[in-house]
Amino acid sequence: MTVKTPVSVLGLGFMGTALAETLLKHGHDVTVWNRTPAKAEPLAAKGATVAATATDAVAASLLVIVCLSVYADAEDILTGDVLAGRTIVQLTSGTPRQARAMSERVTGHGGRYVDGGIMAVPPMIGGPDALILYSGDEAAFDEYRDVLGLLARPDFVGGDPSMAPLFDLALLDAMYGMLGGFFHAVALVRSEKVEAARFAPMVTAWLTAMMASFPEYARAVDTGEFGTDVSSVATSQIAFPGLLATSREQGVDPGLLVPMRELLDRAVAEGHGADGLARLITVLERPAS
Amino acid sequence: MTVKTPVSVLGLGFMGTALAETLLKHGHDVTVWNRTPAKAEPLAAKGATVAATATDAVAASLLVIVCLSVYADAEDILTGDVLAGRTIVQLTSGTPRQARAMSERVTGHGGRYVDGGIMAVPPMIGGPDALILYSGDEAAFDEYRDVLGLLARPDFVGGDPSMAPLFDLALLDAMYGMLGGFFHAVALVRSEKVEAARFAPMVTAWLTAMMASFPEYARAVDTGEFGTDVSSVATSQIAFPGLLATSREQGVDPGLLVPMRELLDRAVAEGHGADGLARLITVLERPAS
Repeated sequence: MTVKTPVSVLGLGFMGTALAETLLKHGHDVTVWNRTPAKAEPLAAKGATVAATATDAVAASLLVIVCLSVYADAEDILTGDVLAGRTIVQLTSGTPRQARAMSERVTGHGGRYVDGGIMAVPPMIGGPDALILYSGDEAAFDEYRDVLGLLARPDFVGGDPSMAPLFDLALLDAMYGMLGGFFHAVALVRSEKVEAARFAPMVTAWLTAMMASFPEYARAVDTGEFGTDVSSVATSQIAFPGLLATSREQGVDPGLLVPMRELLDRAVAEGHGADGLARLITVLERPAS
Repeated sequence: MTVKTPVSVLGLGFMGTALAETLLKHGHDVTVWNRTPAKAEPLAAKGATVAATATDAVAASLLVIVCLSVYADAEDILTGDVLAGRTIVQLTSGTPRQARAMSERVTGHGGRYVDGGIMAVPPMIGGPDALILYSGDEAAFDEYRDVLGLLARPDFVGGDPSMAPLFDLALLDAMYGMLGGFFHAVALVRSEKVEAARFAPMVTAWLTAMMASFPEYARAVDTGEFGTDVSSVATSQIAFPGLLATSREQGVDPGLLVPMRELLDRAVAEGHGADGLARLITVLERPAS
């Protein structure tokens, strides 16, 4: 990067601070603002300009990155004619609905709107493993791709601004599911005094092998063809009470797995026992009354 | 394999049939038995000897593979002096406790006992991706390693016969956790008309990246040092209600994730908010009253 781009960063929690520090490190002109001014001081010492108000911060740069802890605060801040001609990159965690509303508000004031989902924790920002999903105004994203690429690997996932928060939330859900399964499994092997460090590589290899079925599950739900000759809903439903009972027998709380049993029961009750497990996706799409 | 090994296979469900077929295909002398004799007929046509009784089947070979649908049936069958000098490889799904009891019974009659956990579905047997975990009598396992290796990649996980079913169950738990997270995530992106096939590679990449933390979680629970500067129990606990609310807002049943919220709440209530997520393992080890 040889061009110094003026960038404003609003919100200086752990994540906002990491974003601003990374931009400063690469020599950009960074203006920062935080509701509690003390959090701006370490960044001022590293060369950031501290804005007195959020509006001053927005006015200071054509590229404005917002990373607050509460979405509603962004709704208070991002308003008025000061938005005209600026690109707002909203990295505050929100919902698809919130992203659409924010996009309408920003574009209504003549600004360009990009929403983002940060798939990383603050220490990863600026490093090779961080990922940020972006969606919304693609021309604005392209214009600032190089600067944004300093923060994390950027992945533009669609012109609809709700796509980045949607994928962000979905990936978090998938992560918590996997972590829940892993934690339960580790507790189970520990019930027989097996070291977690011995088990961890086995579970990594196993889950990696099982992930190879994701494209097939995706194909099934995309096409609505749920037939299987491998592993049916009914097969899992029959096995599940035993899994839960063994967990209890070993002294491990089976609670994380209970809703999967209920989901399997419901799928069988609705006549999907012979279908493959991807059928469970459509059962989740019709919430139980 | 140049040596033809006599092998008996008891139990001819989908899995037992796949096991017997694979052994026949490699030219071994296979004796089969099933409670319902009709299931033996296709194997007889491929060269298997059909035993009239389970005891006859055990008596026919020094290597006896048992793969029934119900563990209690194995307890009825595997008894008596016919076991003396034979190696019983128990592939019926059971619990660690059942494996220990079966090992005592078989060795009490002068037999050698190996328990196994099949990490595959029947069509995978004999192919490169199938895995069978074994535990128990290591000398017996080593003697038959080549024959057993025709069925699936064999992995001997310990002299305690309960280890294979323990790891089997733990890996299944981990798998259902991951699948639950994946299915939920797919339902969520589909709520905005995103094709599952587009999302599947993203979730595979993301979960693969997240699995890189498994060794660190394992180290934390093995050492009891749960400090973190990355992502705390409290951070997840604060984020979780929003995840559930968004799921509901998008019309997707959030039920699979609810016990994770309860677990996070419990961990925080017990004073572990500042710890890393591996702390959740020890909370699972003390079931809620």
